[in-house]
Parts: sequence; C-alpha cells; structure tokens
Amino acid sequence: MITAKIIGAGGYGGVGILELLLSHPEVEVKTLISPGSTGENIAVLHPHLDGFCNMDIIDAETPEAQEPRDVVFMSTPDRVGMKLAQAELDKGAKVIDFSGDFRFNSVDSYAEYARRLDKETSHDSPGLLPESVYGLPELHRDELQGSNLAGNPGCFAVSCILGLAPAAKANIIDLKGIICDCKTGVSGAGKTPNPLHHYPNRYENMNAYRLTGHQHVCEVERELGLLANTEVTLTFTAQVLPICRGIMSTLYGRVAPGVTEEKVLELYRDFYKNEPFVRVYDKNKTIGSHHVRCTNFCNLTVSVDERTGILRVVSYIDNLMKGQAGAAMQNMNVLFGFEETAGLDRSGMQP
Amino acid sequence: MITAKIIGAGGYGGVGILELLLSHPEVEVKTLISPGSTGENIAVLHPHLDGFCNMDIIDAETPEAQEPRDVVFMSTPDRVGMKLAQAELDKGAKVIDFSGDFRFNSVDSYAEYARRLDKETSHDSPGLLPESVYGLPELHRDELQGSNLAGNPGCFAVSCILGLAPAAKANIIDLKGIICDCKTGVSGAGKTPNPLHHYPNRYENMNAYRLTGHQHVCEVERELGLLANTEVTLTFTAQVLPICRGIMSTLYGRVAPGVTEEKVLELYRDFYKNEPFVRVYDKNKTIGSHHVRCTNFCNLTVSVDERTGILRVVSYIDNLMKGQAGAAMQNMNVLFGFEETAGLDRSGMQP
Amino acid sequence: MITAKIIGAGGYGGVGILELLLSHPEVEVKTLISPGSTGENIAVLHPHLDGFCNMDIIDAETPEAQEPRDVVFMSTPDRVGMKLAQAELDKGAKVIDFSGDFRFNSVDSYAEYARRLDKETSHDSPGLLPESVYGLPELHRDELQGSNLAGNPGCFAVSCILGLAPAAKANIIDLKGIICDCKTGVSGAGKTPNPLHHYPNRYENMNAYRLTGHQHVCEVERELGLLANTEVTLTFTAQVLPICRGIMSTLYGRVAPGVTEEKVLELYRDFYKNEPFVRVYDKNKTIGSHHVRCTNFCNLTVSVDERTGILRVVSYIDNLMKGQAGAAMQNMNVLFGFEETAGLDRSGMQP
Amino acid sequence: MITAKIIGAGGYGGVGILELLLSHPEVEVKTLISPGSTGENIAVLHPHLDGFCNMDIIDAETPEAQEPRDVVFMSTPDRVGMKLAQAELDKGAKVIDFSGDFRFNSVDSYAEYARRLDKETSHDSPGLLPESVYGLPELHRDELQGSNLAGNPGCFAVSCILGLAPAAKANIIDLKGIICDCKTGVSGAGKTPNPLHHYPNRYENMNAYRLTGHQHVCEVERELGLLANTEVTLTFTAQVLPICRGIMSTLYGRVAPGVTEEKVLELYRDFYKNEPFVRVYDKNKTIGSHHVRCTNFCNLTVSVDERTGILRVVSYIDNLMKGQAGAAMQNMNVLFGFEETAGLDRSGMQP
Repeated sequence: MITAKIIGAGGYGGVGILELLLSHPEVEVKTLISPGSTGENIAVLHPHLDGFCNMDIIDAETPEAQEPRDVVFMSTPDRVGMKLAQAELDKGAKVIDFSGDFRFNSVDSYAEYARRLDKETSHDSPGLLPESVYGLPELHRDELQGSNLAGNPGCFAVSCILGLAPAAKANIIDLKGIICDCKTGVSGAGKTPNPLHHYPNRYENMNAYRLTGHQHVCEVERELGLLANTEVTLTFTAQVLPICRGIMSTLYGRVAPGVTEEKVLELYRDFYKNEPFVRVYDKNKTIGSHHVRCTNFCNLTVSVDERTGILRVVSYIDNLMKGQAGAAMQNMNVLFGFEETAGLDRSGMQP
Repeated sequence: MITAKIIGAGGYGGVGILELLLSHPEVEVKTLISPGSTGENIAVLHPHLDGFCNMDIIDAETPEAQEPRDVVFMSTPDRVGMKLAQAELDKGAKVIDFSGDFRFNSVDSYAEYARRLDKETSHDSPGLLPESVYGLPELHRDELQGSNLAGNPGCFAVSCILGLAPAAKANIIDLKGIICDCKTGVSGAGKTPNPLHHYPNRYENMNAYRLTGHQHVCEVERELGLLANTEVTLTFTAQVLPICRGIMSTLYGRVAPGVTEEKVLELYRDFYKNEPFVRVYDKNKTIGSHHVRCTNFCNLTVSVDERTGILRVVSYIDNLMKGQAGAAMQNMNVLFGFEETAGLDRSGMQP
Repeated sequence: MITAKIIGAGGYGGVGILELLLSHPEVEVKTLISPGSTGENIAVLHPHLDGFCNMDIIDAETPEAQEPRDVVFMSTPDRVGMKLAQAELDKGAKVIDFSGDFRFNSVDSYAEYARRLDKETSHDSPGLLPESVYGLPELHRDELQGSNLAGNPGCFAVSCILGLAPAAKANIIDLKGIICDCKTGVSGAGKTPNPLHHYPNRYENMNAYRLTGHQHVCEVERELGLLANTEVTLTFTAQVLPICRGIMSTLYGRVAPGVTEEKVLELYRDFYKNEPFVRVYDKNKTIGSHHVRCTNFCNLTVSVDERTGILRVVSYIDNLMKGQAGAAMQNMNVLFGFEETAGLDRSGMQP
Repeated sequence: MITAKIIGAGGYGGVGILELLLSHPEVEVKTLISPGSTGENIAVLHPHLDGFCNMDIIDAETPEAQEPRDVVFMSTPDRVGMKLAQAELDKGAKVIDFSGDFRFNSVDSYAEYARRLDKETSHDSPGLLPESVYGLPELHRDELQGSNLAGNPGCFAVSCILGLAPAAKANIIDLKGIICDCKTGVSGAGKTPNPLHHYPNRYENMNAYRLTGHQHVCEVERELGLLANTEVTLTFTAQVLPICRGIMSTLYGRVAPGVTEEKVLELYRDFYKNEPFVRVYDKNKTIGSHHVRCTNFCNLTVSVDERTGILRVVSYIDNLMKGQAGAAMQNMNVLFGFEETAGLDRSGMQP
C-alpha cells in the first residue's frame, strides 16, 4: 500500500481522483487539501462520499499536511503546482500535476502555452521541466516508468492526440492543415458557477468559445510533431454543449492519394493493439460519448472520405476520466509499476 | 464462484445486473438470454461492455441455454418469470425476478396488483407464491437468507417503503392518510422508445401519469401494513421528468400530537443504524438525487412540519440500482450468504 | 400607446416583460434600469434582442431615468420596490411589482412573509399596502381594474391558488390538511449563478429545498382563506429539477364523502369557464409542463381518488410567464383596460 | 387573406408551420392533412394548440380535403410531395415542399441526392423541376417572387450555405477543401420515436452519424458552386447532441494569403446588410444556439485564424425555424409578396 495526498480535493479533478483512489487496491488516501474548504469534511462537501471517505480537509500549512506521502496529486489551477512540486519531490513523493505547469519540457514551450491563457509566461521551477514527463502512457509509457513527475495532459489534447497519433506517426496526412473540431461537456470548465454554465443559460445551448486561440493546441502540435518528426500546425475550435461529462473531437486531415480507409483502419488497430484504454471502430459502428462516460476509455471511429480525400477521426473520451482523473490514476499506476488498469477496470453504466 | 444466467439481458434491468456482476468477486456470468436480440453479441448491443463482456445472447430453447446456473436473474416483463421460475428452481438455481410476479404471497394479492396493470389476474405458478420472499433485505433479510426465490421490489415501492417503514413500525402517523408524491427519471419506463420519452417531448417536460392508479401502491400498503400491524391506505402519484436515473419520493403523514422532529429523526436513525445502504439526514442537509446516482443507496431527509403536524420524508434512490439491479444484487448477496455489500460498495461519481 | 419603464431589466423577470412588451400593440418601452448593468446595451446583455431592442440601460438617478412613464414594472428583489413605488405613483404611473412587497394588505401579513425569507419584517411604505391589489386577475379582476398598484404573485403561489380556488370556494375539501407538492424549473431561482444550479450539479438532479418553510405559503393560505371564508393551513414542499421553465404543483385535499370526481370536474370547469388562461382537463388527458411553456396558461388536471377520498389537482404553469412576466402583462392589460389577452395570445411552440 | 392547407400537419414541420400561420396576419389555415392521424383533432394531438386551433385532421381523399387553397405546405417525407404537387398547382395553389423533392432543377442532381438517402433515384414529376426554386430567399429572392413552387432547403444546408455564401461569392477560400462540421439538435430527426433519441440514450450523449455521406452535401455544393461559378467539394460531418432545437455548423476554408479577418468581416457584413434574418458577429462576441431558438435568424461569427490561414465561420440556426417552418413561412411571404418578416418578427424568449 502507498499513501496519497490530494491538493485541490474540493474541485472536480480532486474529487474525481479521490473517488478512484477509494477503490484502488494499492493506495490509501491520507491527506486532503483544498484551500477554499479547509476545515470541512469532504463528505459534507460531497455527500455521495458519506461512508466512503469522511476525512477533514486540512490546512496546507500544518505539520500534518506536510507529512510525506508516496504520491501527491495536484489538482490545482495553472501556476500553483509549479510552486509546490519541488517540496513534495524532496520528501520522496511522486507528483502528478493536473494543470499545464509540467506538460512542457522547456521554458519556451511553457511560455507559449501561458501566453494563450493570458498568464504570466515565466516558469517558477524551470529546473523541473526537463525531468517532467507528459502523462499520456500511450505515447510516453517508458519515460513515465522511470519518472517522479508527470504533467497530466489537457482534456481536449488527449482526445486529439490519441485520435491523430497513428496518422501522424505514419505520416499519411498533411500535417500543416489539420482541423480539430472539439466539443466538450461543461464539467471541463470546473466547479465554480458562472453565467455561461448556469443551468438556464446552458440547457438547449451550444456555442463555440475562445475563438481567439485555445491553449491545448500547443500540446497537440508538440506531441504530433514528435511522432511525425516534423512541425505540425492545426486549427482548433473549442465548443461547449449541454452535457456534463464527455468530449467528442472530430479531426480532419488530408490524406495522400492512395491512402484507403482500409489501410488507415489497419494502421490504427495496429497502433493501439496493446492499449487497454483505446478502442478503434469503423464508420459503420454507432457509438456515442455516453459509451465512455465514467470510464477511462478513448473510443475512435476512423474513416476516409474518398470523395474529398479527408481522413476523419471522431474521438470520444470522458473529459473527467481519460481527460483528467482517470489519466492521473493511469499515470500513477505506471509511475509505481502497478497493473496499469488497476482501479480503472470499469465499463461504465448504461443508460 | 457461482455461475449466473440473465434472462432479459438486453433491457435496462438486464444490462444493469450484468454490469454489476462483471465486477462481483464471487460470480461468473455464463448465460445471456434476451428474446429480441438472440444471436447478437452483448457488446454490440451495449458498446460500453466491449472488452468487459463480449458474449453472445443465445436462444433460450437451446441445450446450452438450459444448463443449470446457480443464480438466475429474470429481468422480464410481468407474467414471464412466473412461467420460467419453476424450471430453474428445479435445476437447483436461486431465482430473482424483477417483475411483480413474485412480490406477493397469495393469488389474491397478486390479482389486485395485476388488475392495476390491466393484466390477466390469475397466477401461473400459484404454488411458488408462499415460498417467494419480497426482496427488500432491510425488512426481510432473515426470510431471504433461507430462500431460493426473491421478488425484486418495484422501484417506486422501494423509495416509499424505506421512507415510511420506521414511522409505520412505530405507529406514529395516521396510516389511512399517507400521501406518496413520487417523481421518477425516464429510465424507469424501460428501453423501448415511445412518444412520451422521445427526447424532444421529454426535455423541459414533467408530467403526472397513470392518475387512474399505479400498481406499486399494493406493495407499499402491504409492507407498511405488516410493519404497523394494521391496514394502510395511501394516495400515490407517479410523475416523470427529464432525468434518466433517479427517484425522489416525497412522503406525507399526519403525526400524533407531541411527536417532535427530534424524536422522529432519532427513530429513523435507530431503525437504519445497521443498514449499509440507507442514510438518514435532517432537513438542513441539502442532498439531491444525484448523490445516489449509480449507487445502491437510499438517502432520506426526515422532518416534521410543526405548524401543520405533518411528517415529511424525502426519499432518494437510483431507480435502476436500489430500485432494480442494485437491489437484485443485494438480494443475491443475501440469498447466497455473500458479504451484503459485495460489488455494491461504490460511492458514485460527481458531477 | 402608453409608455413603459422596466426597473430590473437585466434579470429574468425584466427581460421577460421586455420581450412581451416589444410585441404588445399598445405599449412602447422607453426606459430600462438595471443597477448592475448601467451603461450596457440591452442587446449586448441579451443578444436575442439584437434588432428588436437596442436601448441602453441607464442610470436610475439621471433625469432621463426619472421621466414619468405610464406603467412601471419593478422586477426587483424583495424590499426594493417598496422604496420606489410611491415616487412612480406620484408621477402618475401604474406600478406592477414582481416581489413580495405588495402582495399583502397589512404590515402584519407582510411581516409573516418576510420572516420566512429571513428578511427585515417592517415595511417601508405601509401606507401603500391597503391600496395594493394581489395581481391574480382570475380572483381579483374587479379590484385591479380600479387600481394603480399591483403585487405580482409568487410563481408557486399562482399554481397552487389556481389549482385549489374552485375547491376552496365550494368548501369541498378539508382546508386544514392541504398538501402542496411543488416542483419548479431552475429559472425560478433567477439569473445569478450559484452552485446548486451550476449545470454539472443540476443535470440529472432533483431535490427538495427550503424544507424549513417556503414564503409562498402565506399567499396561498390567505387567498384560499378568502375564498373559503375560513382559515386555511397547508403543508408545502418546494422542489427543483433539471428543467428551465415550468412548475408542476400536485395538490392534495381530503374531500367530504359523496364528492365525486364528476362533480368536482364540473365545478372546476364552471369556475374557469370565462378565463382566457386556465384550461381544465380530466385525469385521462396526458398533458405536461411543456404544453404551457412560453405561454401564460395554467393547465389543470382534476381527479378524485375514490379509494382514499383525496382530491388531486395537478397544476402546470410556466414560472416565467403565468408565474411572472406573463402575469405582469395580464395585470397591465387589466389595469389599463386593454384586451386582457393582448400580447399574450400565443400557443407556444412544440417541441 | 389567403387560405392554407398543410399536408403532414402531425409532424414537427407541420405543427411548426401551423403555429406560425396561426399568428400570420394574412393567412387562414383551412385544411389539415396527416395520414397517420386522420380524424383526430389537432389540439388533441398537440395540446398546446387547444383554444388556438381545434380543427380536425381530415382524410386526404375527401372532397373537402381537395378544395383549392392558395398555399399548400407539404411537410411530407421524401418522395411524397413529388406525387402531390402537380394537382395542387393545377388548382392554382402555390406550393412549398419541405423535403428534397423540389430542391433540384434536374433529374440528375435529384438522383445524386436520392442516392445518398438510399432512395429510388427517378423523379415522379420531372417536368416540375425546372420551375421549382430553391427556397432560400437570401440567394433566390428574385426567382421566388415569380414562382409557384419552392423547395424548402435542408436544415444543415441552410446553416452551411448562409455561413459560406459571402466567401464563395468573393472566391476568397479554397473551394475544394471546405470542411463543414455540423451539430444538430434531435428534433431534426423528426417525431417518430427511435432508440437513438430515446431520452435515456440521448441525454449526456453526443455522436457523429451517417459518416458514410449525408444528403445535404449536394445542396450546399450546388449553391456555393453557383455563387463561386466553379465546382465546390466539401467534407461534411453530421453530429447530434442533447438539444432539441438548434444547429451549430462550424465551417472551415483555407483563405488566400493576404485575406485578413477585417476584410472578411466587412465582406460578410456587406453581403448581409439588407437581410432581415442574418446577423454577423466577430469572434469576440459570445453567442450561442439559444440566441436563435424559436426564431428565424441565422447568427454568424466570422474569424480568420491567421496562424493557420483558415477562415472559420460558426453558423447558428434553429433547425425547426430557419431550418424548416420559419424558412417555409419566409418563402410564402416572398411568393405572395407579403412583408418578408410577417409573422416571423419575434426575438425568441430567454432563458
């Protein structure tokens, strides 16, 4: 058994990893931190946990909160984890950060990301960047196995990267003209109430947002570029609609002449043949975002529009699972050498 | 390990018990029957099961389908299970039926139930009625332990009975004037598409239905009557609203003078103090149906309106869990002497 | 043509009456006030109005804002209208207030209401209370015709009063034991975002709230008491569910022996036979809240459970129309002697 | 006053045009036909119409049903209107067909459309095709003014064509590489219940469908081709999500170097400057599909991603209004020379 600490336990990311850890066979949650809710019982904040976890959220500054834990999850806003990680690493913890703070290996690439968020562009722990690993086991499993610090990917990024990785690796699409049309459920915006996601404004309402440029683009271009060994440029649209959990990203890339749907399907199936959380389907299969709801799966439907020469991949994940807490637990499993599916081996429930 | 057979695996009740059994430590599902889907792979019918259960649904008439299993779940329409139960019992199975077929111990009480459904009122296996047990462990645990045949309760009935049992037992309310105002999510109506639950007709729409008399009334009156040792009459309203999973039943009964909220709360807490799946709260606690979603819990808020002398209990369950498949698995655990919470020990996920 | 001023134009009540007035043949909106949005264009705040109303919201303290208008709508929080009404009346306006400030004719009955809201109980314009009229034309049409000041009813209250008025007037139910089980869409809570109505917390979630006592009870008991000429006591439960617009109130009262469903239906149909906005149905009619969505109608299904002797009325309104802005416009029509249905003669749209 | 007949009055298209006609100042609805509901009162089928329209649906074969009407709306499935139109035209009616039957001017282009629907490809009234006009007044107003037969456009097509028309006309995008990523509410699939749109399967669920090729592509390519005077090829994805009313189409095209966002915005604003139902916004404006709900508007946000050289237009309509019944009424207004906005001059209601 290892011990765990969750910083930011009150938010959706925090409660998500807590729910998962409570049924993980190898982990005991020992410390809950959530600055806005210090002193509250987590089961008062989240009544569904009553009987499963009735711990108090404690003050981050107390000695109790500082006790070393084997794994530390930082479900904190951008620019918070970068200030806290070193101290936890110094105490021997493995650290998984949910924000963009450790998704980049250089101060320059971090700065580009921060710019898109209108955040300060300098990084507070530049020395940690080279050793942090991008937390997508499907592409970085080996590096993660030897690492102590993982930057959990952005939710949109997971859906786009997994949807395009085989095509990028095989260099079968025009890597300068990719279009990622992404739709997310509203839980991706977090638990703080705001006018856009007030129920009366959100039901029966879909809209594009942040048309000026979304920060997840950086990760996707970087990861696809690494696979293709060339620069990748893509157009990305973020859209939100009246669903709580779920991302559907529709991904378009021009294929070279002669690249048939059959070949592409084979390529995708081969690429993911050993992956426990990626399922590949052809265009005749009717699947929807609810089929991955509350699970760690990424479902892909892969097709080529032969009339127009466009590869079209529809990529489905649960933004709070494979897009956040599920990915974090999968990363933890890899970092510690546990069975990679431990605690994540669930089908979800229908309807 | 015991083996299981599910009859009616294609419907919501069937897929619900299948999902649960797939993660039960003591059960292996061996046979899936679903008359409308014979020959289909269950993971084609329910893509979220892909990788978890890829069995074919088989023809009920084949020898393979007739092999004896330790437990048989009959998630079948009313008047189907009554025809099938004896043969399964004869092969040594324990049987759990999801319909009203085995909720009653006499042909007369069954007939009264059937009348409300506009069904034929004669029972095809009258000999089994005396030995069948009403599948609500909170009230019939001892009988279930020695039984081979359980009649899983109606979903509304579970919420009403658990919400009123302590008051009925203690005889603190007027048992002739109870009002049960019940609201259900639409999954309670099953998976067959119909105009009332076509998305465009159901979103932004709530309505009362079957105002002529709902069949679940019989179970509630019978169970409360057994507890109170007197006849119980209640007014019941079924209402449906744009939620998939969930029942909220608001229950009203006139209390005798001097019965205070404090005393009633104590009574309820005491009644349920050893129950793993019932949680009692006071009126200051804000809980909602989502706090029991995808779980086997029944949450109750108990209060007395002192101005009017009315006990008001708000009872929340997930109609597909404590109201159906969860209850069935809890019953199985009791019938076989497994840990009662085995496979049901889950908090649900938020949001 | 008359001129109108809306105070509180930015909220749901304000934009609701604005939408309606824009298509009223006799009214021109001249002044928009909304303290939180001064200086903004109403079509920026509410983009659906672009091209229909592109007026600026102005500062309430400017001379322009003080210009006399024929009708003033105060869609303001409790205890605001009571401070503003006299000045508008002095300028010759007729005033319709949306809060509880003018729903009561005495300081004592106001105080009882305010207590339930945990508000200060003294009234700032006690002199206006005797001349204010409760804005429910179905019961107070004559008084409204001669009045300058109407207190628009509470949304729940409208549904309960219209649902029980014929029974109270005819004295056919036990007026001490009425139960009002009320369900509302979330727009009733207004436009300010809050955790309970944040989309991820509200979808798939229904809950009872304010179990300690809801303020609308006062109006309902008073109005039914006036009709019955006796004191009325009722138990009221407020519940909220994932619908934006709509109230469904299920109302229960014990009938005297011999009161048949047939007689009660006749009574209701007769009571409302000349009312343009109330429709009465029997229990075999399947109607839902969507059938009154975006309209000023109140639909009632009336039945008697002969087994238990309970009258059950299900009352449906749109909380933002007959429960708020629609009622306000109907009141304006009556106050000014316009056709009562002017601007409200719409069926709504399906689906 | 002119008289109207609606064939297919029971479906969403039929009830939609009926609702609109009931408040049109120049039209009286005289005949309702709906094969599946002959003999029923329309207000029983659609209770929200009770008091507004209580006509019976009559048998199409009776003399009464055959009486000549000035305008005939055929809200019928593909391949029905083509059999009925001539007879109505012969009686002097102007005819507006909601299906694809009269959207094409040649048997060849119709055949291509029918192929995508897996329908028979021959046309039953080839002689009418040359005189039918595509019912999009923004592009075909002049032709419609002299016509007796309009083919109402497909809902997706309206959103795509209006979103790309200015760019196509000005030839500023690569017309061989357009991508249309379209999302629709479920009412687009009509009123017949089916598993995909059964509430429990549709809530919390979005999915792409008909990935094999959508029939609306033909209209869009044809119309854009006419504007650009060249062949147009586009990749089209249809997606459905838990909304009842609304289409959001996100449209992508590669712009020539030097084409700035500023110029494109100016181009769009100029193109639509006299159009009563198209509103153009820049990317900083947050609008959503709810802002056009229940209205005949098309809202567009227009931007150029300068990093990638992609024009991105987000196009919002209500699929049942500008995408169906609203468009039909706008067409009627043009065909008869009424004020084009008559009966459509409504802002919608929020929230």
